[in-house]
Amino acid sequence: MTKNPPAIFRPRGRVSVVALACLAALATHAQADEGMWMPSQLPQIAAQLREAGYAGDPAALADLTSAPLNAVVRAGGGTGAFVSADGLVLTNHHVAFGVIQYNSTPGRNLIDNGFIAGDRAGELPANPDFRVLVTVGFDRVTDQVLGAARGKSGRAYYDAVDVASKRIVSECEREAGVRCSVANMYYGTDFYRVRQLELRDLRLVYAPPRSIGNFGDETDNFMWPRHTGDFTLLRAYVGADGKPAAFSPDNVPYQPPSHLQVASDGPQEGSFAMLAGYPGITYRHRTAAEFAEQVEWTLPTRVEVFDSLIGVIEQAGRENAQARTLYASQLQSLKNNRKRAAGELEGLRRSDAVQLRGADERDMLQHNARGDRRELDALAGVLAQASAVRERDLLLGLMMSQSQLLRSALTLERLRIEAAKPDETREAGYQARDLALIEGTLKQVQRRYDRAVEKAVLTALLGRYQRLPDAQRLPEFDAAFGRTPATLAAALDTLYAGTTLGDEAVRLAALATAREGRALPVDPLLALAAKLVPAQVRLEDERKAREGELLRQRPLYMDVLAAWRAHQGRPLYPDANGTLRVSYGRLESLQPRDAVTYAPVTTVQGITQKNTGQVPFDAPRPLLDAIARGDFGATADAALGTQTVNFLTNLDTTGGNSGSPVLNARGELIGLNFDSNWEAVSASWWFDPRYKRAVHVDMRYMRWLMEKVYPAPHVLREMGL
Amino acid sequence: MTKNPPAIFRPRGRVSVVALACLAALATHAQADEGMWMPSQLPQIAAQLREAGYAGDPAALADLTSAPLNAVVRAGGGTGAFVSADGLVLTNHHVAFGVIQYNSTPGRNLIDNGFIAGDRAGELPANPDFRVLVTVGFDRVTDQVLGAARGKSGRAYYDAVDVASKRIVSECEREAGVRCSVANMYYGTDFYRVRQLELRDLRLVYAPPRSIGNFGDETDNFMWPRHTGDFTLLRAYVGADGKPAAFSPDNVPYQPPSHLQVASDGPQEGSFAMLAGYPGITYRHRTAAEFAEQVEWTLPTRVEVFDSLIGVIEQAGRENAQARTLYASQLQSLKNNRKRAAGELEGLRRSDAVQLRGADERDMLQHNARGDRRELDALAGVLAQASAVRERDLLLGLMMSQSQLLRSALTLERLRIEAAKPDETREAGYQARDLALIEGTLKQVQRRYDRAVEKAVLTALLGRYQRLPDAQRLPEFDAAFGRTPATLAAALDTLYAGTTLGDEAVRLAALATAREGRALPVDPLLALAAKLVPAQVRLEDERKAREGELLRQRPLYMDVLAAWRAHQGRPLYPDANGTLRVSYGRLESLQPRDAVTYAPVTTVQGITQKNTGQVPFDAPRPLLDAIARGDFGATADAALGTQTVNFLTNLDTTGGNSGSPVLNARGELIGLNFDSNWEAVSASWWFDPRYKRAVHVDMRYMRWLMEKVYPAPHVLREMGL
Repeated sequence: MTKNPPAIFRPRGRVSVVALACLAALATHAQADEGMWMPSQLPQIAAQLREAGYAGDPAALADLTSAPLNAVVRAGGGTGAFVSADGLVLTNHHVAFGVIQYNSTPGRNLIDNGFIAGDRAGELPANPDFRVLVTVGFDRVTDQVLGAARGKSGRAYYDAVDVASKRIVSECEREAGVRCSVANMYYGTDFYRVRQLELRDLRLVYAPPRSIGNFGDETDNFMWPRHTGDFTLLRAYVGADGKPAAFSPDNVPYQPPSHLQVASDGPQEGSFAMLAGYPGITYRHRTAAEFAEQVEWTLPTRVEVFDSLIGVIEQAGRENAQARTLYASQLQSLKNNRKRAAGELEGLRRSDAVQLRGADERDMLQHNARGDRRELDALAGVLAQASAVRERDLLLGLMMSQSQLLRSALTLERLRIEAAKPDETREAGYQARDLALIEGTLKQVQRRYDRAVEKAVLTALLGRYQRLPDAQRLPEFDAAFGRTPATLAAALDTLYAGTTLGDEAVRLAALATAREGRALPVDPLLALAAKLVPAQVRLEDERKAREGELLRQRPLYMDVLAAWRAHQGRPLYPDANGTLRVSYGRLESLQPRDAVTYAPVTTVQGITQKNTGQVPFDAPRPLLDAIARGDFGATADAALGTQTVNFLTNLDTTGGNSGSPVLNARGELIGLNFDSNWEAVSASWWFDPRYKRAVHVDMRYMRWLMEKVYPAPHVLREMGL
Repeated sequence: MTKNPPAIFRPRGRVSVVALACLAALATHAQADEGMWMPSQLPQIAAQLREAGYAGDPAALADLTSAPLNAVVRAGGGTGAFVSADGLVLTNHHVAFGVIQYNSTPGRNLIDNGFIAGDRAGELPANPDFRVLVTVGFDRVTDQVLGAARGKSGRAYYDAVDVASKRIVSECEREAGVRCSVANMYYGTDFYRVRQLELRDLRLVYAPPRSIGNFGDETDNFMWPRHTGDFTLLRAYVGADGKPAAFSPDNVPYQPPSHLQVASDGPQEGSFAMLAGYPGITYRHRTAAEFAEQVEWTLPTRVEVFDSLIGVIEQAGRENAQARTLYASQLQSLKNNRKRAAGELEGLRRSDAVQLRGADERDMLQHNARGDRRELDALAGVLAQASAVRERDLLLGLMMSQSQLLRSALTLERLRIEAAKPDETREAGYQARDLALIEGTLKQVQRRYDRAVEKAVLTALLGRYQRLPDAQRLPEFDAAFGRTPATLAAALDTLYAGTTLGDEAVRLAALATAREGRALPVDPLLALAAKLVPAQVRLEDERKAREGELLRQRPLYMDVLAAWRAHQGRPLYPDANGTLRVSYGRLESLQPRDAVTYAPVTTVQGITQKNTGQVPFDAPRPLLDAIARGDFGATADAALGTQTVNFLTNLDTTGGNSGSPVLNARGELIGLNFDSNWEAVSASWWFDPRYKRAVHVDMRYMRWLMEKVYPAPHVLREMGL
């Protein structure tokens, strides 16, 4: 099997002229907008890029450590971009929200009032854990990662990859101020070492009020048309030596290797647009069987189980006002997850994704002349192993995430076991650096636990577990909870009547002994955990063995898929994995359903229309007044005759792309990505060009706000405006 | 003051050529779509009608007792139209819903399954109170109505109009099978005697299942895009002598004087459309002061008071599951009323109606050369009298409509008083023909009353009443409830602890004595009613005196307004009053808000998109299968390449227009009106061409359903299809 990455893009086999013409059409039209490209791929799709309207040299985009892409950074949990020579970073209000919150006090409410630093001395230090990461190295390390793994299988393959990756990271991080990681491309086909400068001193420069930066909040989340000024400006500082440093008044502004220039004009429907950022995870190149499982089992089951937990918690809340308060946040989170799962299911069904991916894979296998069908069948076999225990794994996962005391007990017992090992060999999540997080979780139990609700939640989950076929059940769990609703109820009654883990002091005392690997106090839930954790560890071992096999076998599938895509004239991008990607497309309207059309640009008139004076549609008076005055000047859209706010593109994005800069054909900054539309929730699996859109702040709106509404002329000047 | 109706349309005064050109433009563009025209007005707007695209002779539309308008009938609470020579009546599913329900049994659920009569013998008799009214006479009787009133004022004017109207009706109804009424045009300017044939034997011929006829139900009510097959076919029968008769198996199909022909093709965006029907009530020609009061006081106050009652009832429901059930319907109704009021307020504000009507009236008064400003001021004075007691009247009205026992007591006491008079002189609502309704209301108290909730509702309403200024309060109410929350609470405690009206037998026994004018049983609530009813009667007398003055004075305002409109080149239609009207316009898209456009035609693809399998989006399997087959044939829209469902026009409609036929330029039937859009809720006061739309069933959808989904070829044949 070829491990040479260009094979992914090189057409193979003989193709007729007609087919080639047809495939070129496919490539430039039907599929032109799908793709989260690695910068190194862009020269290979230069023709498409130019045809789509890009005026620059695609070759200049190939190196993500050179301009302009080295102006694009990871910021907090999203993306950001340098927009001045003195280290101004533009990102979303919601990405920088922690920074704003950290600097807010009852007497100086920056969330509600926004913030403008009058000068550099007035810039406010971010929370110390906020980071901006500048990618300074991106090197293929496939041979180092896979060297020891080759010839192995299962758990051994997994461990070899894991050990090699950890070694690469640890060697790389010997350099001060640098954070490293190993990125897995094409599901184990290729590995890259990512070196990133870790900027630790960020300061708040400009934030609009929440009623602009988060106008519409949850109500408008995932919605289009949108009217949100979701942007904030930070500035990165480094030590006097130019190296990353923690906050110090002596630090100096970071001089980035390059920065983006805000465009002096704006886009309109059909305009070329391009976006760079750090998308988190997609599943586009999973097998047809995985698509079918997602639609036919995973998502419907998640909806069903979430519904049952929502019902249990709501019922408890009706009977008990205190429980209602304690579980408000967990309930909200379950409802969000339920909504996401239902939306993804709806989208995948609307796009007929299972059918289309199935047909695509059948065609791919028919086209595959390599005769290695047996190896592909082996991949299917490993996936089937995971499917065989999927319901159990879902239920036991929820047992951990949806309980408070039981999770505390299981965490403490696992920590006790892991603490006996050297720190670097402990399971992730139980290392020294994780202790603060564990302590925080144990402390917040107090604000989230009600005995009756936890028992009801566990009754729902474990009751369902009890009804699983024998092959999915575990002797440890059957021993603990029996096989009938009556035994389960009796077990939970006994456990929760006897446990003292509801007492914070008891939990923290247990943490003190667990972290030293010493025996835990006597408690029924801790005694239960001592019986269940070995089963959890066994399942984890089985999972890692399966993951090792998948790491070993998926590259073949990817290779066959790449050959098929090459035959179609469609280069293959790797699924998103948190590394820097580029997508290109255009401003495009959306027909979300019969007889409804959404224009791709919104205007300030929509703010006035949505404004109710009540959160989340409480546009601030200065904004409403400025809209009423109509004093838009150079930032107004000539064709619309008014000020634009947000725009919509068909760019390929997913979570992690928040704050991604959107560029025009000349590479100038025209927008800031901040959301996608509800119809695109399913795009992490399937890109449907009819429905996939991304939502951006129009930079003309940002400029207008900074010019006329909450003026910051010195910041605009610094950005060359 | 001129009473000659043509004055309403005749331009007066000298107008510059420029102004005339400008006004002509106004008339054909900005205002072309507003107007619920009396058929007699259509020849006067013939030029506009032709310019809009009407291909027929406007003069042929002038007489509502001739073809084609005599094919348009009142049906139940809405409108219908004859569509065959043998008396087939097409109306909405929701207008004929009572007929369908009346014929449904658990074993034969016509609501869920729909109904197709295999032949005439299979047609099912409607509920005996369902009526179809065919207008056979429409004659001006202004002189007869106003003859005795002239020279009088106030209550005497009111009584003179009332007596004359009742005499006209009673003389007219001497003819068997005819129902008569007197219609008041232009607010007392003109009166018409309406003679209508009262068809009493209606039979169900064709109804789609509820999941087509009411697809979307409350969720889609007032919404566009829409996908509802809201139509039903009935047949009118008469006695063998051709005269209206109650149901009899010997009756024969009614032969209408004319019927409409369904078009063989369908409309598209921009197509001319025209609609005839019986709109109920509009307020377009009210004074600027009345507009201001509606927006600044009436609607906000209604929202506020409804909110407070909703809060009271919901709070009670949280504490008491039985109360929640008993008040579910009242709560739903309050919420609907609240939503309507808030929607109307939002719409009037969005349209800036107060400002625009105010400016219009100022211009009108400036243009008015008649020097009768003092008389117009007198009208304003009468309106101000009503405004001075508006909050009291709102609260006392709600005290009646939102209570159960107190309303029962007040009704019984009033009936006792009225029953002592000869039947024809009793107050409307307390005559012999009203007794069944009163008895029904007294009976249903059992299913709608909870003591604690009624007391809480009255505490909210009367507590607010207690805070009114002295001038609005009534000595009888102050004596009964005191002036403080404490006295009110004590009074309600005593009244509801002591009353036995919660017992149905007691209420019905009281009805038996009240209907004979005899003394009522001893009961604290009845004793209270004996004190309060005289105050209610006094307020009613004051209201009638004011209404008499309004009847006397509004015609002057209307005359000045008509002169102003004539000067503008805009004929004036009378506000809707339940008489036959015609409006014309075209299929038009809607931009309800920033960046959103709704196309004016929906397709069956929208049904598939909306379908969830759950009520109200549970499209029936035969429909979904037929859509999936795509077998649309001649009923498909050529341009869209699929089957249309509903369409949207800018026609001027209001409640009562349900079931109105929509005609094309050739006068053929292309649609059936059934709803309007949410943005148009405020159109009863102000027609805003940006937002006012009407929603229709596309006759191609009806034909397709009857051809291919639930076939009824014999009915289609009868309709000439």
